[in-house]
Amino acid sequence: MSTNNSIFESLLTIEDFAGFEDQARYEAEWLPKIKKYQENLKNAIPKELTVELPKPVAELIKEQFNAVDYLYSAKLLTPKEFEITDSTISQLVDKQVEGELTAVEIYNAFAHRAIIAHQFTNCAAEIFIDEGLKQAEERDAYLKEHGKIVGPLHGIPISIKEHLNYKGKVTHASFVSLIENVTPEHSGTTKILENLGAVFYIRTTQPQTLMHLDSNNNITGLTKCPFNLLLSAGGSSSGEGAISAFGGSAIGVGSDIGGSVRSPSAFSGTNALRPSTRRIAETGTTSAGAGQESVPAIFGPIGRSIDDIDYWMKSYINEGKPWLIDAWALPIPWRSVPKPDPKDLTIAVIRDDGLVRVSPPIRRGLNEVVEKLKAAGVRIVEFQPPNTKLAYETINKMYNCDGNYMQKKYLSASGEPLTRLTKWDLNFGDGSKHYNVKENRELNYIRDGLRNEYTKFLVENKIDFILSPTYNNVAPHSEEVYNWSYTTLFNILDFPTLVFQTGIFQDPNVDKWTEEDLKYEYRSDLEKLENENYKPDEFIGAPIGLQLSGRRYTDEEIVAAGKTIVDDILKVDLLKH
Amino acid sequence: MSTNNSIFESLLTIEDFAGFEDQARYEAEWLPKIKKYQENLKNAIPKELTVELPKPVAELIKEQFNAVDYLYSAKLLTPKEFEITDSTISQLVDKQVEGELTAVEIYNAFAHRAIIAHQFTNCAAEIFIDEGLKQAEERDAYLKEHGKIVGPLHGIPISIKEHLNYKGKVTHASFVSLIENVTPEHSGTTKILENLGAVFYIRTTQPQTLMHLDSNNNITGLTKCPFNLLLSAGGSSSGEGAISAFGGSAIGVGSDIGGSVRSPSAFSGTNALRPSTRRIAETGTTSAGAGQESVPAIFGPIGRSIDDIDYWMKSYINEGKPWLIDAWALPIPWRSVPKPDPKDLTIAVIRDDGLVRVSPPIRRGLNEVVEKLKAAGVRIVEFQPPNTKLAYETINKMYNCDGNYMQKKYLSASGEPLTRLTKWDLNFGDGSKHYNVKENRELNYIRDGLRNEYTKFLVENKIDFILSPTYNNVAPHSEEVYNWSYTTLFNILDFPTLVFQTGIFQDPNVDKWTEEDLKYEYRSDLEKLENENYKPDEFIGAPIGLQLSGRRYTDEEIVAAGKTIVDDILKVDLLKH
Repeated sequence: MSTNNSIFESLLTIEDFAGFEDQARYEAEWLPKIKKYQENLKNAIPKELTVELPKPVAELIKEQFNAVDYLYSAKLLTPKEFEITDSTISQLVDKQVEGELTAVEIYNAFAHRAIIAHQFTNCAAEIFIDEGLKQAEERDAYLKEHGKIVGPLHGIPISIKEHLNYKGKVTHASFVSLIENVTPEHSGTTKILENLGAVFYIRTTQPQTLMHLDSNNNITGLTKCPFNLLLSAGGSSSGEGAISAFGGSAIGVGSDIGGSVRSPSAFSGTNALRPSTRRIAETGTTSAGAGQESVPAIFGPIGRSIDDIDYWMKSYINEGKPWLIDAWALPIPWRSVPKPDPKDLTIAVIRDDGLVRVSPPIRRGLNEVVEKLKAAGVRIVEFQPPNTKLAYETINKMYNCDGNYMQKKYLSASGEPLTRLTKWDLNFGDGSKHYNVKENRELNYIRDGLRNEYTKFLVENKIDFILSPTYNNVAPHSEEVYNWSYTTLFNILDFPTLVFQTGIFQDPNVDKWTEEDLKYEYRSDLEKLENENYKPDEFIGAPIGLQLSGRRYTDEEIVAAGKTIVDDILKVDLLKH
Repeated sequence: MSTNNSIFESLLTIEDFAGFEDQARYEAEWLPKIKKYQENLKNAIPKELTVELPKPVAELIKEQFNAVDYLYSAKLLTPKEFEITDSTISQLVDKQVEGELTAVEIYNAFAHRAIIAHQFTNCAAEIFIDEGLKQAEERDAYLKEHGKIVGPLHGIPISIKEHLNYKGKVTHASFVSLIENVTPEHSGTTKILENLGAVFYIRTTQPQTLMHLDSNNNITGLTKCPFNLLLSAGGSSSGEGAISAFGGSAIGVGSDIGGSVRSPSAFSGTNALRPSTRRIAETGTTSAGAGQESVPAIFGPIGRSIDDIDYWMKSYINEGKPWLIDAWALPIPWRSVPKPDPKDLTIAVIRDDGLVRVSPPIRRGLNEVVEKLKAAGVRIVEFQPPNTKLAYETINKMYNCDGNYMQKKYLSASGEPLTRLTKWDLNFGDGSKHYNVKENRELNYIRDGLRNEYTKFLVENKIDFILSPTYNNVAPHSEEVYNWSYTTLFNILDFPTLVFQTGIFQDPNVDKWTEEDLKYEYRSDLEKLENENYKPDEFIGAPIGLQLSGRRYTDEEIVAAGKTIVDDILKVDLLKH
């Protein structure tokens, strides 16, 4: 581990947390509940779906074990299970309609793969295999009885980030104080997915406060990148990233307020969409963000196939009609946009956001992708994004401008210990300074100016999309994800963003800092901390995922262009091994 | 005048305004500037476009003079001018294309009618007849040269509320301290309208702070209802209501944060749409609301014909593409929705919002409309709207929760005297208590709950629209508009709302309080104040305008239903006299 404590401490000035963590109360009142929760989680794993690991997980972690490669090389699933779980959603639905597969067959295959994913990565916050089986049986019975499917997600096993409320189950959002918080209703989005025919069986992990691009919390602990178990799965949709990259669900749902759908997708090795605001229902979730609208959290699909992301968005919006459930949701239909010809595309490339230099593997990945795009005929414009410092400072202030009131309320209710990155996030912006309304409005005003500035740039220069790193590094070590600037830029702009896999992985022999790199003068302590954390030998095989962003509500165009780039130009297919 | 000072004072507790108004400074530094502004405004009126008034305005006001009737009965315009100014926009555009009318002819007719409107109602904040003429000439030249129109608003004279920035002109938003504030660029919406071919010549009045449903301010004074000059034109788009009802522009643009498009339309006697949020560009305006997004101000068209409102929205959105200028604006195309059959409509009727009882003319107007709707086959559902007190209290807190910081900043910069209703609005909610972010988020959370509650009611009961009073009274006397509850309900819900004229006018012989009315026990001081202000003989001939609202982003359906109701069922045509 490459922690540089001196820099970390200088960046992390903890104020006013005296008496905040209460170890004695926590241990007496809450630790027993956590133990019980963990016991239940363990007992919910059907023995028959588990595999024998090659070594204890702690050793695999040290060895930077690649669980995805092992899944295939050790043939942990049957050929039929591989075939099912490496299909697209529309293939799975079609095969049910044609009588070639049942929902139960599909379900059993994904349940098996999900349990193995959890064994390696610790991606599950809750498992309910029997209930999922019952739902799958109901789907089969419905199709048999009515001769038609329930909806476009009929019999599709979907994983969901835990903080979306689930009817009759505990929803804790990784706050210990909520470990017995039974939510009476499904979240709006869960309800819609259920109406469309989905099957639920696993809820996935997220970090304490939901505000890390990482996974640690006092209930479920760390979630790991399936391509290198030493590394972080990303966050805050940590479990979603890991289960998706491992193939344990057909598609999953995460939420993103600063990169929380994109970081886990990029780090763990899968694809995802952070849609424009208010296209997905946001009712019925548990978090510390109620009423915060300067920078709303957005739900988005995480899946291995961009076709699946398209299919999910289209089904969810056009048939789910979220605006009938959540008055915030916009009745903007999901448009069918054809894959563009590369020659018709103009893409602006951000190689450096002016704040934190990217590490060698990201630099190489971006270079290779840009060269392939150019070769395919895409017009590339080099883009030094303006006002990124202002954007980053502003969004960081937005997160905490309630003086961390709600976070502290939920954290102090149990006195639980603060994880390393919770201390980090509670110090975002002005830390626990509680803004007044005028100050909050000033932040909104800055945000709107930035949005108009970037929109004007794209419109006037006829630029379709922006290509950028998702983070200044590949998946870092757990609890060492400090910089959010590459993802938050698109939250403050509210630009829809697809994270896609390049098919390129970190190579310790190639992705080294050069002599010139080492002479670099850091622009900030944050940059120094982030750059010094990258050491080639500790990131072996980490996936390289990039962002493709566009103007607000061009989600459809981004997904279509994603298919051109990923399927046609890069020829990356995460369903093929 | 029916002011009941004791109740007024009990409702209006002015705190912390000591030293706020600074008469000496105001008179020494600012009054001369105001005089100069007023002189310029007067001098901008071309003598040849004015008419001789039957009596001085002060006397006409006392007589409750109906200027609209007089316009026609005294034939203040030529037949051709009447024909032009009583046409729809599409008729005017078609006639230009066909060579039957020039933009200059159209312009001259509207300019004439606008100047007369201003003589009677004091609706103008700025007049620039020569510039408008030049624009009209340019439109004619363009059509001649290119054989096609500039856009769908080619040569259409449009009035605009003053607080939308105008390139190179002063934009003061009725704050004396901004009386020399030259804005360098057009507002986004002004720019779009210009691109579509519109012609500008008049900017219209609004009250101090923009937060009265009335008109008074220290720069332009009161604006009057053209159907009864004793009464208020409404506000805050005061001048827009008056000029539209009088026919001085083909269509106008107002803004609405609590009823400011709807109150002037209802009071002055015209139609208008308060669209759903973020369909119209909101960049480039002057107000005290920068960065406030709990309840955004929305721009909307004010015009005599619902066809024109439809045409304006369609042109503005589909051809103006506001999202390319204002990143907030949503790329939701304006859909062509056919006029519905009355038999397919279900309308919920609010007769009383539980807060302030409506006056006899509103009660009668609503009754008559409901009976006609029923007779036409519309299904009517009586609707007692829930949680209206919470809704009203919450939105009032939202307005002022910056502790009136921005209002005070602009007001105190000149020390200008506060008008009666400015004192009223500065005491909305918790007055000058400055909320912190947590408290503001709580308000947002309440708002979202209300939206979902009302949306659920409409969806589950298959209700298409809500019909309601725009205000508990017809146009009241100037400076006596206290209650906003009927309009603000649809701001906090963000339900698009059409205000339409019923063709029914107050009749002092009919619209009296009954014996039973007089035994009524008031639910609040506010209700008492409002109800006691209605005295039949002081509101002669005041128009009765109602609201038709629906779920968010059903703007098109509301406008289409408005045509069914107004054109087909009520058979009201404000372009015919």
